[in-house]
Amino acid sequence: MTEHQIHINKIRREMQAAGADAFLITSNVNLFYTVGQVVMGYLYIPIEGVPMIFVRRPVGALHATSLHNVRKPEQMTEIMAEHGIPLPHRIMLEGDSLTHTEWLRYEAIFHPAKAINGTPAIQRARSIKTETELELIRRSGKLHAAVYAKIPELYCPGMTDLEISIEIEWEMRRAGNLGIFRVFGQNMEIFMGSVLAGDNACEVSPYDFALGGKGLHPSLPVGVNNSVLQRGTSLMVDMGGNFTGYMTDMTRTYSIGKLPEKAYRAHQTALEIQDEIVRMMRPGAVCEDLYNRSLEMAKHNGLDDCFMGSRQQARFVGHGIGVEVNEAPVLSARSRTELAAGMVLAVEPKFAIEGVGAVGIENTFAVTATGNEKITMLGEEIVDLER
Amino acid sequence: MTEHQIHINKIRREMQAAGADAFLITSNVNLFYTVGQVVMGYLYIPIEGVPMIFVRRPVGALHATSLHNVRKPEQMTEIMAEHGIPLPHRIMLEGDSLTHTEWLRYEAIFHPAKAINGTPAIQRARSIKTETELELIRRSGKLHAAVYAKIPELYCPGMTDLEISIEIEWEMRRAGNLGIFRVFGQNMEIFMGSVLAGDNACEVSPYDFALGGKGLHPSLPVGVNNSVLQRGTSLMVDMGGNFTGYMTDMTRTYSIGKLPEKAYRAHQTALEIQDEIVRMMRPGAVCEDLYNRSLEMAKHNGLDDCFMGSRQQARFVGHGIGVEVNEAPVLSARSRTELAAGMVLAVEPKFAIEGVGAVGIENTFAVTATGNEKITMLGEEIVDLER
Repeated sequence: MTEHQIHINKIRREMQAAGADAFLITSNVNLFYTVGQVVMGYLYIPIEGVPMIFVRRPVGALHATSLHNVRKPEQMTEIMAEHGIPLPHRIMLEGDSLTHTEWLRYEAIFHPAKAINGTPAIQRARSIKTETELELIRRSGKLHAAVYAKIPELYCPGMTDLEISIEIEWEMRRAGNLGIFRVFGQNMEIFMGSVLAGDNACEVSPYDFALGGKGLHPSLPVGVNNSVLQRGTSLMVDMGGNFTGYMTDMTRTYSIGKLPEKAYRAHQTALEIQDEIVRMMRPGAVCEDLYNRSLEMAKHNGLDDCFMGSRQQARFVGHGIGVEVNEAPVLSARSRTELAAGMVLAVEPKFAIEGVGAVGIENTFAVTATGNEKITMLGEEIVDLER
Repeated sequence: MTEHQIHINKIRREMQAAGADAFLITSNVNLFYTVGQVVMGYLYIPIEGVPMIFVRRPVGALHATSLHNVRKPEQMTEIMAEHGIPLPHRIMLEGDSLTHTEWLRYEAIFHPAKAINGTPAIQRARSIKTETELELIRRSGKLHAAVYAKIPELYCPGMTDLEISIEIEWEMRRAGNLGIFRVFGQNMEIFMGSVLAGDNACEVSPYDFALGGKGLHPSLPVGVNNSVLQRGTSLMVDMGGNFTGYMTDMTRTYSIGKLPEKAYRAHQTALEIQDEIVRMMRPGAVCEDLYNRSLEMAKHNGLDDCFMGSRQQARFVGHGIGVEVNEAPVLSARSRTELAAGMVLAVEPKFAIEGVGAVGIENTFAVTATGNEKITMLGEEIVDLER
């Protein structure tokens, strides 16, 4: 069985459970997941039989058993009729990523089939990675960590957060980072990642990332704000590691000279929270338990007022990652999802301290049969850029 | 009247024409257009009376007359009821950018109002820029052109397309480019722009840009393909100029040494097409006439087989641009839209020549009362990087 057949079979198990007899895949990220590359086209997955690929372009892009070139999606059902393939009764569409207009178009094409939202189903399927996918994530993790190892060399006194960010972006691209990273959620957007210096780490942003930042412009209020790196403040680097289509997420903390004692204490607490999550993270563990335990440890150390933000606090401490940066499951309060072998999670206990900046850690882990595996390996202490 | 009130009034004229008594704005790009910054929130525009802003976060982000903090969108109608504001009968929602799931949620909130697709209406409103918007576009254009002027200095013999792209990206970011540029269309995505060297310019991509490129990876098959810049081939640079939230689009062609005669002839034809479009581009001109005239000139010069691509040809020669890179109107076959003063268009006659690469030009223009104004000013001949 090929890798993509395995993915399709995982989706079929979800279809079965929901009583759907077909799934139409149309989004870039899910086409990459199911056919192995982005095409302008559609993958029709019947509950049984051969999946059909309908490609608008590039014509001839794929080698597949049931491949059809089309000019418009309405031809799909014509071609199915020609091949004597029955129309579906209950078809899953990607309701959380298709625009409403597109949903109506596909719904009309498969009328009178009932269209149901298949996004949660494919997200569940995607949440359990195969060994091949884990290997791609490990490869991203190695390259990601190798770039971070160079960050101390990129620093010059007097730099702004934007200037050091641009140098890190350059190193990322030179190492093969594809630049974009895919984020789930229509209003989620960010450039290559987030570099937060000093108090900017406490600025609230409209985006649903772990921390915020004021950004450079009201059209994109997140991340660097062009402030000079000041002695006695921290620099948190949290860039997306998209080197293979499968991503890693990783954060390291730097300081300009020495930080106030509270910052080191908070950083140590973040590392202890990470250790505790590592201890708990295995098949059967419940997502909310990991979040609640993290919050409890922050509280125990008198740091709950700055855990995962200060002026506004994110209510999660980790998230799934793969072909999108924010996949299922989420380590959040009230998530009863149980971890399973093959899940990949970015775990990111962080603190935002007014007057100092953000401290903490983020690593990407794979859940294994007996525990978990750390994918992003690099020293975890605060590195003083002035030394 | 403030800038954003002018924008809202333009939207109201479209609402009036469609018989809508409200518009709910929720997407980042349209929030930036109507309230001046991205927030996690909603702008409710009644056909008469004060628009209401409902902000989930950041709380206190805006100073506006009717500003309400909410935790969830369902509170909007509760707050309206408290203020004695009548519910709408026919409400516009952004049907071409809202996901289906979100559409259903907003539709339910305003039930029993009829929800209609407002995307074409707001796109028409956005297509006519104010003097303030033109000034932001001019500022992007100046910075964009200044970066392109440095491209010859960035070249070293033996470089790959990716390597020179990374250097241009670095210069762009240093000049203040925000990095992302917003593209309309759910499956449209690209990193900072497109650098196409040699035959890669003829590669068909699934994305609906003017030219394609194989890309670095099947998860993002567009743009550079990591090929070494070869003598006798061209290098086309087409990056997004997002310096102010308002973008310019601009393409220049370079060569590695001397190109075959056909390439220079095609480039001159592209410049002549641009001249002809400049002559025609004024209020009242019809979009399809500009495209058809371009195609006719390409044909007259025996170059119609490589106009706007070779293995696949784009059916447009220009597009609106502003807060998104692909706005209304489009200079395409069968577009009967008439140009009007204040429209901003990227005009991009290009040819993709097998064995050589892409040649041609792209500039951003504003339509004025009597003709048009070129915004992206820089030499337009092919620059030999080896000299």
